[in-house]
Amino acid sequence: MCAATVPDIIIGRLPLYLRALSKMASEGNEITSSQELGARLGISSAQIRKDLSQFGEFGKQGTGYNIEFLIDQLRRILHVHQVWDVVLIGAGDLGKAIAHYGGFLDRGFQIVAVFDNDPKKVGQAVGKFTVKDTKTMIEEIQDKKIRVAMLAVPASEAQGIADELVKAGVLAILSYAPTSLKVPEGVRIQYIDPVLHLQRMTYYLP
Amino acid sequence: MCAATVPDIIIGRLPLYLRALSKMASEGNEITSSQELGARLGISSAQIRKDLSQFGEFGKQGTGYNIEFLIDQLRRILHVHQVWDVVLIGAGDLGKAIAHYGGFLDRGFQIVAVFDNDPKKVGQAVGKFTVKDTKTMIEEIQDKKIRVAMLAVPASEAQGIADELVKAGVLAILSYAPTSLKVPEGVRIQYIDPVLHLQRMTYYLP
Repeated sequence: MCAATVPDIIIGRLPLYLRALSKMASEGNEITSSQELGARLGISSAQIRKDLSQFGEFGKQGTGYNIEFLIDQLRRILHVHQVWDVVLIGAGDLGKAIAHYGGFLDRGFQIVAVFDNDPKKVGQAVGKFTVKDTKTMIEEIQDKKIRVAMLAVPASEAQGIADELVKAGVLAILSYAPTSLKVPEGVRIQYIDPVLHLQRMTYYLP
Repeated sequence: MCAATVPDIIIGRLPLYLRALSKMASEGNEITSSQELGARLGISSAQIRKDLSQFGEFGKQGTGYNIEFLIDQLRRILHVHQVWDVVLIGAGDLGKAIAHYGGFLDRGFQIVAVFDNDPKKVGQAVGKFTVKDTKTMIEEIQDKKIRVAMLAVPASEAQGIADELVKAGVLAILSYAPTSLKVPEGVRIQYIDPVLHLQRMTYYLP
């Protein structure tokens, strides 16, 4: 099947598989099964086999999956066998927390610059970065051909910044701002919204 | 259909519907359709009708959904027609950002206490809270019968804190720590992991 036709809901599960498999590998395992993977993730083994079958034949009936091989394949499918340069916009509390987070590099991403439009923040150190003025953002993104951005700015500023990012050539935006953003066709956007997760749990609470 | 049998993947979409409907209401709309809602969310109208039909009959063929009514119904289904008290553990950069976030209350949640085990942070002001010592956490959770917690602590400390939260009676944990946590049956856990979102987008990038 042509990869372009795989439903996005399936694509959304692949990073979960990759994360679980990486954990298994770090625990010293070499082989797994759709049953074991499913049990870790709370997803049915049939669903996992069906999802993976969209991209090829990764395991054999009765012998399971070779973990390292499947990790490598999933990294290629998700385009994270390479490391993507990422710009972070917003050097407030959240931006600082993101800049300090150590879990990006071995999963395909590295922050290369942090921007803010607050003169009090520009020039300050955040983790290993010196905060730059958003005025220089478009030029730096264009120069370095950066395609991925994380947005940790107030809701009121998010659309304006997103527009600039798109203009500079960014194709994927992960926004922590609690507002929906409009981006042109061909630009991907994802949101992190803690309330969605909280509501998904309270459904089950007595 | 008995609500207990509704697949979790459907439950996970209900908060998205609720958020989009609340946005529509705030824009002054009174009626919508599964087509319009689907277009906003990138989900097929058939999927939306099928998801909602698990819980009853919320619209009529040809007349669409009454937005306020559907918001009210979804709030009841997700148990956010009430406001849940939430404890936040971790008063670092991320914890501060969460404590300052203004988008919880009108969606069913209010942070009532912030805890940290760092003596330098205990007693400090974070937003409208004074950071408390995690030593007093179990007692306060039990006294106030708090069922929901947000975890913004380092990965190395997350499991220990989660165990204490469960002991104190917490039934739902939203963890920002980049590690999988074990919780007993009957306790819900959700994770916020920016890399899952980033990888879901890079799949589509050239």
